[in-house]
Amino acid sequence: MKHYDVICIGTGPAGQKGAIQAAKLGRTVAVIEKNPVVGGAQVNTGTIPSKALREAVITLTGADKRNLLGASYRAKKDVTVADLVGFSQQIIRHEWELIGSQFERNHIDLIWGHARFVGPHEIEVDGKEGPERYTADSFLISVGTRPARPDHIPFNEHTIITSDELVQLDKIPRTMIVVGGGVIGSEYACIMATLGVRVTLVEGRHQVLGFLDQEIAGAFQFFMRQKGITLRLGEKVESIAEIETDEPEGGMGRGSRSNKAVEARLESGKKLRADVLLYSVGRQGVCGQLGLENVGIEYDDRERLKVNDHYQTNVPHVYAAGDVIGFPALASTSMEQGRRAICHALGVCDVRNYNTELFPYGIYAVPEISMVGKTEEQLTDEGIPYESGIAHYREIARAKLLGDELGMMKMLIHQETHHILGVHVIGAEATELIHIGQAVMALGGTAEFFIDNVFNFPTLAECYKVAAYNGLNKLNHV
Amino acid sequence: MKHYDVICIGTGPAGQKGAIQAAKLGRTVAVIEKNPVVGGAQVNTGTIPSKALREAVITLTGADKRNLLGASYRAKKDVTVADLVGFSQQIIRHEWELIGSQFERNHIDLIWGHARFVGPHEIEVDGKEGPERYTADSFLISVGTRPARPDHIPFNEHTIITSDELVQLDKIPRTMIVVGGGVIGSEYACIMATLGVRVTLVEGRHQVLGFLDQEIAGAFQFFMRQKGITLRLGEKVESIAEIETDEPEGGMGRGSRSNKAVEARLESGKKLRADVLLYSVGRQGVCGQLGLENVGIEYDDRERLKVNDHYQTNVPHVYAAGDVIGFPALASTSMEQGRRAICHALGVCDVRNYNTELFPYGIYAVPEISMVGKTEEQLTDEGIPYESGIAHYREIARAKLLGDELGMMKMLIHQETHHILGVHVIGAEATELIHIGQAVMALGGTAEFFIDNVFNFPTLAECYKVAAYNGLNKLNHV
Repeated sequence: MKHYDVICIGTGPAGQKGAIQAAKLGRTVAVIEKNPVVGGAQVNTGTIPSKALREAVITLTGADKRNLLGASYRAKKDVTVADLVGFSQQIIRHEWELIGSQFERNHIDLIWGHARFVGPHEIEVDGKEGPERYTADSFLISVGTRPARPDHIPFNEHTIITSDELVQLDKIPRTMIVVGGGVIGSEYACIMATLGVRVTLVEGRHQVLGFLDQEIAGAFQFFMRQKGITLRLGEKVESIAEIETDEPEGGMGRGSRSNKAVEARLESGKKLRADVLLYSVGRQGVCGQLGLENVGIEYDDRERLKVNDHYQTNVPHVYAAGDVIGFPALASTSMEQGRRAICHALGVCDVRNYNTELFPYGIYAVPEISMVGKTEEQLTDEGIPYESGIAHYREIARAKLLGDELGMMKMLIHQETHHILGVHVIGAEATELIHIGQAVMALGGTAEFFIDNVFNFPTLAECYKVAAYNGLNKLNHV
Repeated sequence: MKHYDVICIGTGPAGQKGAIQAAKLGRTVAVIEKNPVVGGAQVNTGTIPSKALREAVITLTGADKRNLLGASYRAKKDVTVADLVGFSQQIIRHEWELIGSQFERNHIDLIWGHARFVGPHEIEVDGKEGPERYTADSFLISVGTRPARPDHIPFNEHTIITSDELVQLDKIPRTMIVVGGGVIGSEYACIMATLGVRVTLVEGRHQVLGFLDQEIAGAFQFFMRQKGITLRLGEKVESIAEIETDEPEGGMGRGSRSNKAVEARLESGKKLRADVLLYSVGRQGVCGQLGLENVGIEYDDRERLKVNDHYQTNVPHVYAAGDVIGFPALASTSMEQGRRAICHALGVCDVRNYNTELFPYGIYAVPEISMVGKTEEQLTDEGIPYESGIAHYREIARAKLLGDELGMMKMLIHQETHHILGVHVIGAEATELIHIGQAVMALGGTAEFFIDNVFNFPTLAECYKVAAYNGLNKLNHV
């Protein structure tokens, strides 16, 4: 029975970075993967495939260049599923190779199969060659989540699907209903609408992406509607069913199934029909399969684990990181959680010089959205006096060059200290741009930093200067 | 005779931002413009047109997507001059409007005509309605530069040209010689090569872009050659002449002139022929026209002005900013110079909280290049011990999505303090990306900042984390 210093269960972002951290510290490490490929939802069903789809759609439709090259501009006339899938597969294969080579380079053993705890320090892995047992001093549970599939919804992989199946559809639907206006639902609604699909998004709350600053969410909803998306906000789905349809075969792509469609009834009495329904409300842990009861580790009713500040479960030598511990469930934060969990497990006193609570949110919708720090609503609730500085992309030369005239940045500035309390961006490159503000916030800079700073011209980064001027000018009038 | 608190001569970046700063401080301001349009070289012949051309070429040829969409992918089959010019003109017009509306909003008088000093506080402007005189307490000379046109080179606007004429060519040449491997020559060589033009670049030194870190310049030269550009380094041009050619009409675009071409003889004896020769060695001031002798202001033999740390010429109430004062002659730095000159002129004690010496360089070649801080060569010369951390774009998911597999970031880390001494990027979004490193440098962060920081995934900004790990890992082995 082989013994390791550390065993990581799951090879998504948290497992990867945890394992690599342990290896870099000179320890023996194994990672266990139950799927036939490494990378977890990040690489195979979630982050990467959706971003690859997004990039392919934007490129192939020329959607981002129409302002400049004329409304009728199309990079490619008939976008096929093959175009989209080929693009995505190439990226995914590359990620597999990258992860595999990182494991190899760092002498991390990759073990295929389902892992089950059989004792506090022992797991059994149900691999191809039959069950094998391994022991370790510390464990990291980073098994991720899967889309929630409530029993009352008749999922069928073709017309009523979750995001896992969306990236595998064999034709581009004409119409789509998206249930759930969270990150996944909003991203796919935009991507599919950009592709020319008529999308209706149903969200129980009165705003999509509830955690966003309301001004940004409002702008995003405006953009979605401009793109032809119908938003049904404050509406709940009562029932979902596949139906036969008399209409001619609907898909735009190659291949065809029989004339099935889907019908959703809302509690308000509305009836919606579409070729495909994407159900994207919540994700669900998979802890039930891990034999955690054999070690006394507790999980909640959505099969998620609770951890302390060091990412320890209630059994101290078993850590957990990534989506399985819930919020914020982002690839970016999961990586860092995995790394820190292992640092703690191995007793490496990882001195924190920097404020690491400042993680950014990145939403890869069309356009991108990103934020760091607080929203206006949070600051108002907390009684922190602020002023907001705005930069509109239409005033920024680089944005004109990129064909983005609708984007904006909002910087929230403390009224007295001029420290930056939050940065919110919607528009081209938002997810990249946010890191400048993040660094200045983390290192204690004020709005004056952006006034004094010289930015390359032309860049979107100039937004920071424009927003800082706008905010400080308003403050001068107070 | 109208009196102003401040008169700015020239409406390029320095003049614009100087004038706006004065207006924001409540002073009366006029700007003088000798050209029929505002914006100077930045808007009309330099920065913006070259960036618009670059963006149009990359978009229309699909050059940045070929890695992902196949080598034969073209967004548009036959790119015409009309495609390129239309794009550019739209951006330029927008900039004119933006500048005009900023002047108006801030109650800045825009006066058209050549300005000449007739007394220490008085200028005459030779406008359409005849000469008018104006007085002011302070002046800002921000008249920019124009491409140098040595007498021995037979410029003709069609085959032997400077960058001013390049953006107005009426057809796309098949072949082009670029003399001078500075920023302008390198940018245009890449843009034209991307468009399919066979380019030969002649540079007297043994490296293009001499101020760059040598590893980055080396990578850039490799990329240029990959793109089909012939580099003739360490070569000097002896003579340039227009010639008749028997070849059939050469241009790829519409319109045609007679069969003229150009021949350049190098000192090494080589003879180069091409449809067009772009001469881009140096730029030349235009101070001789300003009547500076009437006020006792001295300029050098390239008609550039010398200023002190406050941007004062040898006549204290006459300031100068922008390209006219020489290095670094970037739109980005010119803006800040103009603003600071005016702050000083108006006695506004502009407290400097931040290290503002850290201005970035941005080169909009294909790919982009950007740097902030020192190069390896500078650090070695200065005896500052450093380690370099590298991130290759091929390891970064976002770069894969963007189709850039060749880019890289290099971070130079102080061996003892781990402070960041320089950041160098070549690849997609380099000019945006550099600002994260710039902020961390300015605010005193160390390489550990990037380890602890959570970056959105997938983003190019992740390069910072990868480079920091790489550098710190090397340091751990020291």
